[in-house]
Amino acid sequence: MHRPAFSVKISFGVKLARNELLREFEPIFYPKSIAVVGVSQSMLKAGSFWFKTIVDAGFDGNVYPVNLRGGEFLGLKVYPSLREIPGTVDYVIVSIPREAVPNLLDDCANKVKAVHFFTAGFSETGDAIGYELEDELVRKAREGGFRIIGPNCIGTYSPESKIPYGPGGKIGKVGSVGFISQSGGIGEKFVELGVARGINYGKGISFGNGIDLDSTDFIEYMAVDPKISVIGAYLEGTRNGRRLFTAMKEVAKVKPLIVWKAGRTEVGAAAAMSHTGSLASSATIWSAALRQSGVIEVGGMEELTDALLIFQQLERWEGTGNGIAVVGGLADGGGGISVSASDACAELGLHIPSLATETRQRLTSLLGQVGSILRNPVDVSQSGSNPSILRDAIGIILDDPSIELIIIQEDAGILLKYLPWEMVQAINTVFVDFRTKQDKPVVVVSPPGAAEPQRLEIEQALTQALIPVFPTMERAAKAIMNLSRYSRFQASVKS
Amino acid sequence: MHRPAFSVKISFGVKLARNELLREFEPIFYPKSIAVVGVSQSMLKAGSFWFKTIVDAGFDGNVYPVNLRGGEFLGLKVYPSLREIPGTVDYVIVSIPREAVPNLLDDCANKVKAVHFFTAGFSETGDAIGYELEDELVRKAREGGFRIIGPNCIGTYSPESKIPYGPGGKIGKVGSVGFISQSGGIGEKFVELGVARGINYGKGISFGNGIDLDSTDFIEYMAVDPKISVIGAYLEGTRNGRRLFTAMKEVAKVKPLIVWKAGRTEVGAAAAMSHTGSLASSATIWSAALRQSGVIEVGGMEELTDALLIFQQLERWEGTGNGIAVVGGLADGGGGISVSASDACAELGLHIPSLATETRQRLTSLLGQVGSILRNPVDVSQSGSNPSILRDAIGIILDDPSIELIIIQEDAGILLKYLPWEMVQAINTVFVDFRTKQDKPVVVVSPPGAAEPQRLEIEQALTQALIPVFPTMERAAKAIMNLSRYSRFQASVKS
Repeated sequence: MHRPAFSVKISFGVKLARNELLREFEPIFYPKSIAVVGVSQSMLKAGSFWFKTIVDAGFDGNVYPVNLRGGEFLGLKVYPSLREIPGTVDYVIVSIPREAVPNLLDDCANKVKAVHFFTAGFSETGDAIGYELEDELVRKAREGGFRIIGPNCIGTYSPESKIPYGPGGKIGKVGSVGFISQSGGIGEKFVELGVARGINYGKGISFGNGIDLDSTDFIEYMAVDPKISVIGAYLEGTRNGRRLFTAMKEVAKVKPLIVWKAGRTEVGAAAAMSHTGSLASSATIWSAALRQSGVIEVGGMEELTDALLIFQQLERWEGTGNGIAVVGGLADGGGGISVSASDACAELGLHIPSLATETRQRLTSLLGQVGSILRNPVDVSQSGSNPSILRDAIGIILDDPSIELIIIQEDAGILLKYLPWEMVQAINTVFVDFRTKQDKPVVVVSPPGAAEPQRLEIEQALTQALIPVFPTMERAAKAIMNLSRYSRFQASVKS
Repeated sequence: MHRPAFSVKISFGVKLARNELLREFEPIFYPKSIAVVGVSQSMLKAGSFWFKTIVDAGFDGNVYPVNLRGGEFLGLKVYPSLREIPGTVDYVIVSIPREAVPNLLDDCANKVKAVHFFTAGFSETGDAIGYELEDELVRKAREGGFRIIGPNCIGTYSPESKIPYGPGGKIGKVGSVGFISQSGGIGEKFVELGVARGINYGKGISFGNGIDLDSTDFIEYMAVDPKISVIGAYLEGTRNGRRLFTAMKEVAKVKPLIVWKAGRTEVGAAAAMSHTGSLASSATIWSAALRQSGVIEVGGMEELTDALLIFQQLERWEGTGNGIAVVGGLADGGGGISVSASDACAELGLHIPSLATETRQRLTSLLGQVGSILRNPVDVSQSGSNPSILRDAIGIILDDPSIELIIIQEDAGILLKYLPWEMVQAINTVFVDFRTKQDKPVVVVSPPGAAEPQRLEIEQALTQALIPVFPTMERAAKAIMNLSRYSRFQASVKS
């Protein structure tokens, strides 16, 4: 495969001061104007659909549809070229065939601030033309004073600015989670899972081949952005590993940075090459570098979104992972859950300490002994699913000085087999109250099953109360482990 | 902790011939009569609720409520003792305090065939009385000529006989999957996930402390039962490891046996001791023994039910795991999925071979090249979500001689962002057709997200067509790996 030497990359992130960096990215996340190049009359074309999505989302800056043929679209004048738009344009979305790209670049010079190429067909194809085009893009961007996002990506998601993520995208609740994705499709899943699980983003970006602005740039930006509290990144590769690792090391000191490095295996790396033109790199080197930096490495979409959720929900928790209590058996016997939860937590490095004698005595007088396991995990099945007894039991456990966090297995399918809906809601309210009224976090495991609509309603109520909810004990344990690992890293940095 | 020497255990499984074994278990899975001891007027009592559940489920043998006080329940005569019931009773469910158990045992002698104790409070409490009571149970059972299930368990699930699993249990579709669970609650989740995911059971059992009939007995029975094609077991421990391992080795030769051994960690083993009185045993020893036996060891409820599902759905598949094709990008770009799916499969030991030149040429002329990845994984995003093009693309991939199974990432949340519901259903039908009309299996990954009701409908249609559906690529890969591992083991046994 022919691979021409890559032209010098414009690197500015590390050199700029915080305010300059924030200003530099304003046209990308807070643009005053957006042009979409490649808007036709057909809604089947990505450009047209995209443009309409931005208008419908209520973006309140100027919007300009662009198409060589001119005309009107959604009652707005279609500009035959970027040049004819009055004034400067902050953010341009390009959805035209790659052959038409070089001409467009000339129109961008000294006219626009950032150009995002949805257009694909560059280095990821592995052909020489693709590489040459990419070089031309970077050269013309440098000469013309604008930045490039992509090519081969979906670009910006900025709920605050009412910029949806790609065509058909919805605007979620504004939060403080940032995501960075080399893949457009994975970015889409970030957004969707955010809505589904209550992960509220402040900003997101997909940057595809990353020929100009690369992962490092976006990570550095989100690190200095006061509106972002945690950063999740899906990365396939980088053209400048040293720069990325240096940046990540600095970033992890100030903010949690969670990285899913894909293309870890040989076949995965080959796919990454075909996807975003990313060069293969050793998974071992990546993992070692991430670990040394205090970056949290995760293995897939579930672990990544689980981590974003728990970092968002338990933002100020500074636990060690050594004081975990587990409660099961809210309706039926919780013995099996006690055993399997113990395995799941212990295997992932969480410590489930024995409860103090006093705690066990208090639990025994509350629940009785026969049929219940009152060590830790605690099987509360003898509470008879009485919300008030359950409240007392959890209170007693949280009083134990060795406990810093409680995981509750709340199985909606099992609960609804025995209890009316109102009772299940009352039990749910007990957990919400504990999350609100005291400092030790409550984490809920809500396994999918045969009562999905009700389960999702329960999950939503918990999520709104800042309780992180996971579908399995293993995923909860992993998320808590990732959180406590960062909290220990932070403590080591500060000391 | 005081642990009296355990009385001699009646072991019969290995000694009995197949027909004798089937006959021996008839009173448990095909009883002609069921008595429930501990039925009062209050539906809050487990015994009463249980009895009503059995009647409501349509069990068509004789049913006898038993309570010292006599009277009537649901229009039926309540017997003051088992003795007063006319004739023999096949299956007795006992839900009374442990103190009342010794007297009951005298009533069982030469009167009943199997007694299942829901009653708890035996060796799992760790107190001497518990152990002594258990010894008395076993002794009286031997003297009185009946078998014991439990204590501390939920007992039989036999959809064919319309025996629900525990109080409030529903009868699922009759199938050929068997489950064996030391924990009642885990058994409940087996049943619930079966309904939710289309795992159809032939029989199930929870046996708790297993003081008489133990895991080995049930595994041996299900092994010879022609109605059972695959066995899943949740085990915490056994009182006779040598017997269990010997049996498992024989069973794995004739039928897939999937075992989740819980209590693997120190804290998990302690919980198992409190739950079912199971003695701690080394996880390493278990794993080694299982592997040598050709038993498939799994790590949790998800992996276990995933395995049961794939063994049920692809019963006759004899693949190696070396010819996996992955398809993604049904609506948006599938690049990220290609990369991450490659990692997931490769890390779990599945091989994603390169497609033949001819296959790639055919795909290129069908889909074009720019923006699509046509190696393997195949990104079909350029099909424009056209069901007919998608059908052709999958057909081309399945024609490739190196491919033995295809995994399709069908993301309902993403699809429904772009396509109307009818179109998504049409795409789903393409997969169903391939599963029906040719031999290479289709496996679907259907990730949860923001369109759960529709996603579940899609999953159901696929499941009915014998397509195994998994929520993540990792879980699909693990299930396929478990299946192909067994198929390789079978090949080695036969050769």
